[in-house]
Amino acid sequence: MSVERLRIGVIGAGRIGRVHAEALTTRVPQAQVRVISDPVLESATTASRTFGIPDAVADHRDILARGDIDAVVICSPTDTHSQIICEAAAAGKHVFTEKPIDHDLGKIHAALAAVQKAKVTFQVGFNRRFDPNFERVAEQIREGRIGTPQLVRITSRDPSPPPLSYIKVSGGIFLDMTIHDFDMARFVIGDEVEEVFATGGALVDKAIGAAGDLDTAVVVLKYRGGAICTIDNCRQAVYGYDQRLEVLGTQGALLAENNTPTRTALWTKQSLQTPGPLHFFLERYMDSYVAEMRAFVRSVQEGSAPRVSGADGLQAVLLGLAATRSAREGRPVRMSELHPATGAAA
Amino acid sequence: MSVERLRIGVIGAGRIGRVHAEALTTRVPQAQVRVISDPVLESATTASRTFGIPDAVADHRDILARGDIDAVVICSPTDTHSQIICEAAAAGKHVFTEKPIDHDLGKIHAALAAVQKAKVTFQVGFNRRFDPNFERVAEQIREGRIGTPQLVRITSRDPSPPPLSYIKVSGGIFLDMTIHDFDMARFVIGDEVEEVFATGGALVDKAIGAAGDLDTAVVVLKYRGGAICTIDNCRQAVYGYDQRLEVLGTQGALLAENNTPTRTALWTKQSLQTPGPLHFFLERYMDSYVAEMRAFVRSVQEGSAPRVSGADGLQAVLLGLAATRSAREGRPVRMSELHPATGAAA
Amino acid sequence: MSVERLRIGVIGAGRIGRVHAEALTTRVPQAQVRVISDPVLESATTASRTFGIPDAVADHRDILARGDIDAVVICSPTDTHSQIICEAAAAGKHVFTEKPIDHDLGKIHAALAAVQKAKVTFQVGFNRRFDPNFERVAEQIREGRIGTPQLVRITSRDPSPPPLSYIKVSGGIFLDMTIHDFDMARFVIGDEVEEVFATGGALVDKAIGAAGDLDTAVVVLKYRGGAICTIDNCRQAVYGYDQRLEVLGTQGALLAENNTPTRTALWTKQSLQTPGPLHFFLERYMDSYVAEMRAFVRSVQEGSAPRVSGADGLQAVLLGLAATRSAREGRPVRMSELHPATGAAA
Amino acid sequence: MSVERLRIGVIGAGRIGRVHAEALTTRVPQAQVRVISDPVLESATTASRTFGIPDAVADHRDILARGDIDAVVICSPTDTHSQIICEAAAAGKHVFTEKPIDHDLGKIHAALAAVQKAKVTFQVGFNRRFDPNFERVAEQIREGRIGTPQLVRITSRDPSPPPLSYIKVSGGIFLDMTIHDFDMARFVIGDEVEEVFATGGALVDKAIGAAGDLDTAVVVLKYRGGAICTIDNCRQAVYGYDQRLEVLGTQGALLAENNTPTRTALWTKQSLQTPGPLHFFLERYMDSYVAEMRAFVRSVQEGSAPRVSGADGLQAVLLGLAATRSAREGRPVRMSELHPATGAAA
Repeated sequence: MSVERLRIGVIGAGRIGRVHAEALTTRVPQAQVRVISDPVLESATTASRTFGIPDAVADHRDILARGDIDAVVICSPTDTHSQIICEAAAAGKHVFTEKPIDHDLGKIHAALAAVQKAKVTFQVGFNRRFDPNFERVAEQIREGRIGTPQLVRITSRDPSPPPLSYIKVSGGIFLDMTIHDFDMARFVIGDEVEEVFATGGALVDKAIGAAGDLDTAVVVLKYRGGAICTIDNCRQAVYGYDQRLEVLGTQGALLAENNTPTRTALWTKQSLQTPGPLHFFLERYMDSYVAEMRAFVRSVQEGSAPRVSGADGLQAVLLGLAATRSAREGRPVRMSELHPATGAAA
Repeated sequence: MSVERLRIGVIGAGRIGRVHAEALTTRVPQAQVRVISDPVLESATTASRTFGIPDAVADHRDILARGDIDAVVICSPTDTHSQIICEAAAAGKHVFTEKPIDHDLGKIHAALAAVQKAKVTFQVGFNRRFDPNFERVAEQIREGRIGTPQLVRITSRDPSPPPLSYIKVSGGIFLDMTIHDFDMARFVIGDEVEEVFATGGALVDKAIGAAGDLDTAVVVLKYRGGAICTIDNCRQAVYGYDQRLEVLGTQGALLAENNTPTRTALWTKQSLQTPGPLHFFLERYMDSYVAEMRAFVRSVQEGSAPRVSGADGLQAVLLGLAATRSAREGRPVRMSELHPATGAAA
Repeated sequence: MSVERLRIGVIGAGRIGRVHAEALTTRVPQAQVRVISDPVLESATTASRTFGIPDAVADHRDILARGDIDAVVICSPTDTHSQIICEAAAAGKHVFTEKPIDHDLGKIHAALAAVQKAKVTFQVGFNRRFDPNFERVAEQIREGRIGTPQLVRITSRDPSPPPLSYIKVSGGIFLDMTIHDFDMARFVIGDEVEEVFATGGALVDKAIGAAGDLDTAVVVLKYRGGAICTIDNCRQAVYGYDQRLEVLGTQGALLAENNTPTRTALWTKQSLQTPGPLHFFLERYMDSYVAEMRAFVRSVQEGSAPRVSGADGLQAVLLGLAATRSAREGRPVRMSELHPATGAAA
Repeated sequence: MSVERLRIGVIGAGRIGRVHAEALTTRVPQAQVRVISDPVLESATTASRTFGIPDAVADHRDILARGDIDAVVICSPTDTHSQIICEAAAAGKHVFTEKPIDHDLGKIHAALAAVQKAKVTFQVGFNRRFDPNFERVAEQIREGRIGTPQLVRITSRDPSPPPLSYIKVSGGIFLDMTIHDFDMARFVIGDEVEEVFATGGALVDKAIGAAGDLDTAVVVLKYRGGAICTIDNCRQAVYGYDQRLEVLGTQGALLAENNTPTRTALWTKQSLQTPGPLHFFLERYMDSYVAEMRAFVRSVQEGSAPRVSGADGLQAVLLGLAATRSAREGRPVRMSELHPATGAAA
């Protein structure tokens, strides 16, 4: 217990900012949140009161300027991530950023270069790697329990679509929703993808199609080592937030089923009934948010590599860009087609 | 294939007689049913036509008199079992009888003596021993997979009560319904019971209580070796025929869940739904009826001990009598209190 | 019961021939098998003895020439199917043929024309449509229980690869193994496929790859109505024969899990253990073989449309050809590219 | 948010004291723990540092004397509960006490009288009522989802026995372990017990038997309304902490299965494997400890009746005494036999 508590500033007091602030203040004793910022000062002030954070400011640069802050947790809008990462790195702060780093490959590379130059710890918010179910699957694969992975299957479906206004600025289903699954696909197999085939439709809401996006999508990933992963996404699964994973290997298979609010059942004349999945991501992934904060704090304190690196953040965006192109052009896209700095054809 | 097919006569063409006739004629190639009898000749004739059995007779003694019959399968009313067993044994026929042998201990002993004297194979119809689920549990216990059994739990509930007219002649819930569970309790543990505590009520239908019977019952059995078994019965489980078993041992536990018509699920906004248990005993236990016939035929052909003996048939009735007494007198009853020949107080 | 029993000849006494002979003789009382043929006469003779079939012949034409035969069940090698279908139709026999009708589209069309001209009942052996699990899923979709289907997922994996000698003459994984899944994909959704994307590798056994085939494959089907189906196949799933199905619709989802030999569980210090899937297709699909025979007999007797038509048989082969081409060319293939009569580019 | 935070002192810094201190300080924002006491001052001091509690004292009376404390949470040894309850009530503090209130009925009655006279809120620590699984079952019974309850089944088994030294001062299995199940039996049904039959043995460890206790026990409870409950306990279930519940009613059944650390499965050649139950009570019931603290704080702040009353605490002890007597005397014991003030024969 001789380690000092990590002094943290939270940037952004929206939904995910409050999630991290609550996790850090109540369930990460190795950290102390000293300040929270939000351009809407009242949001920051309210959060500071709710979570017992001493200071609230409007401008995140007021956090970066403080000498008593070791690290920042960036929860601002996506299009501000890369700039704040660069500023924070320049100020010598360790950085945790919400995903995605950016949708623009140039900005991602700038951010990666900044944290590398500053030699600060940099972790990207792919929280699902810290979910006990998926972590256990990955762990058992690493232990060799199923031999060499051959087929991966990721199911990732939301209970209902977000507002159309959100869809329009989301970057499209592959960069907004599937991006988590791209990271999961890399995480569990530990191999890189060679080719991406994506297809889909607007089967839930035609307005989503009219906005140029898909609400139902299937992606097939071929890994360098030969394994194949299928991802299926839908913006609407009426029975709830469906987050499952299966991996077939040469010696067995691993599965992760949905978490549910209880383990109860009701048996009636009609059927045997059990509760559906935990409703949405805050319920389902709360433990993973806490675990990723703990891991970030530990990485900084121990000087160890973060469990989700900048390179991981980059790869997920590249896969999202490849899938977007595949769906548009109706053909498989090889990752080598993407110029790593721009996502444009090489 | 050098073994001759066993030549069988079926006595009784009611529901269970037809079940055995169908099993024998379609799924036991080592047997041939040559004749079926029923006091209502038309029942026998219909069955003979349905199952392709050459002869139909009214009087079972016409079967026993035939030289071309090796064995009989007794499916007549319970109160005729013991006499027919004695007659069949005297005629040198091997005997399979439906359970129970009789409700009267004196008649049971007479029947057991008759088959023993005639040195014919004698098997009692506790078909549930041949159910793949329960057989697998028993087998794994024998293999030592859970160490020494400590606690057994048998759930045995019907979907709905039989007619009151049936209840009135049934011998009471413990001799009619629990008797299967008493045999199961002995089968899976392989130890004898020392003490029986039984209690219950008429919670489904007061008319059953008015008829002097129970429709809901709990029995606690203490085995000589210390293990304890609880049985719970109910004449009505609206979700279906509930037939489950659990055994806790020093090294683990074994469970048998219900069989269902399909392994499908329907996931809706309300709940995740799966189908209830197979509706009733003909659906649930059909495979076990076939297997017990095959086992009987094999026992005769190989001259091996039957898998359910006359002693097994006797013990189940003794347990039923002890439970009846326990529930009436509101106290645990030791098996040693029962005079084995009469069931009366020693 | 005024309907006469259908008089059947079975052509081919290999594994699947014996399966159908046993089903027909023991579990389809509306049929009687009068004769079985096999070029290896001894195979036919043995089967006739085993199943109590009066006659055994070497040449199937001896069956077709008989006046006392109403229908034939064709279980001969695939490359003889189309010719025997034509001969049987010409002889006025109703025809059940094992799948696939043929691998050659020209021969398929000839066979379809022959049965159409002869106005005989013609059913193709896609037995999985009769599996209680899949049938229940399809039924609930028809009932509207999940609204409009959007995503289908078929898992179909064998416990271990067949001999390499079999692989070499199998027609490739898509025509040999996936063909069942193509039929299932059409069956549950009731819509036709517009585009096929297939990919895979030889991840189980390099010798399979050297023989020009795949042992692990993923197929994505886009239906005309917009729904998307993914199929994943592997020649080896060490935990057993994996046959699952999921359908997501606008109002819910339907799932079919694997059947298992028992519903037992063993709970130990290490884990809670349940038995794997029924080992292979004879165990898993036995009930479906019986049901498809019953359905065929009923179709003939009632003059109703068969539940699996010649058109169904054709479509499955077309999908197999499209998938084969897609995997070879590394691109999605539209069904309209296939000339329906030849499978060649239009 | 106008409600003041409840100012709490925790009495006892042992295992359960730390559990409540952590729950209150991190997950009950409506409360603030101002002081913790323990006769071993260092334990209190360590806890105060760990959980950020301002003060630590050795003598609980130093807590009771403070004017800035509204309520106490009693986590001291069982034999001190009743006296501290009386003292706290006299000091006008609201009281939460760990279970059991006491093993001595006279002392229980004194404690109940003291809190009643002082008109303070008094809640007893039957945390399992707050477990989401059991709460959901009880809720659905109250909603009438299964009609009138008929049969209840409670499974409550520890992963391994406590040290013999603990067994010797535990009050016996019925007062130490089954007491939770007695409360659960009352909670889910909402009816009082009329008769208790208990039996058991020392099947896990003969030394437990030599110490005059049982390690395996079965209890049958008959409720006034006719329903019957069976409880089975074992000090050792090698597969883990087994906490299940089933209720059969006239219109259906409700079940609560075990919680597990993950929802993953490993499918191998041998079997399909899933993880066993959460290992022990801290893991399994952590959420319930938080929920009971929240409920206590809310009861005090709203002046509402506590969700577990002093009468509930008394009834559970009475059932434990009745079961102890039943097992000793080998007969069912009616609750009316117990003099409510002493537990002795009336």
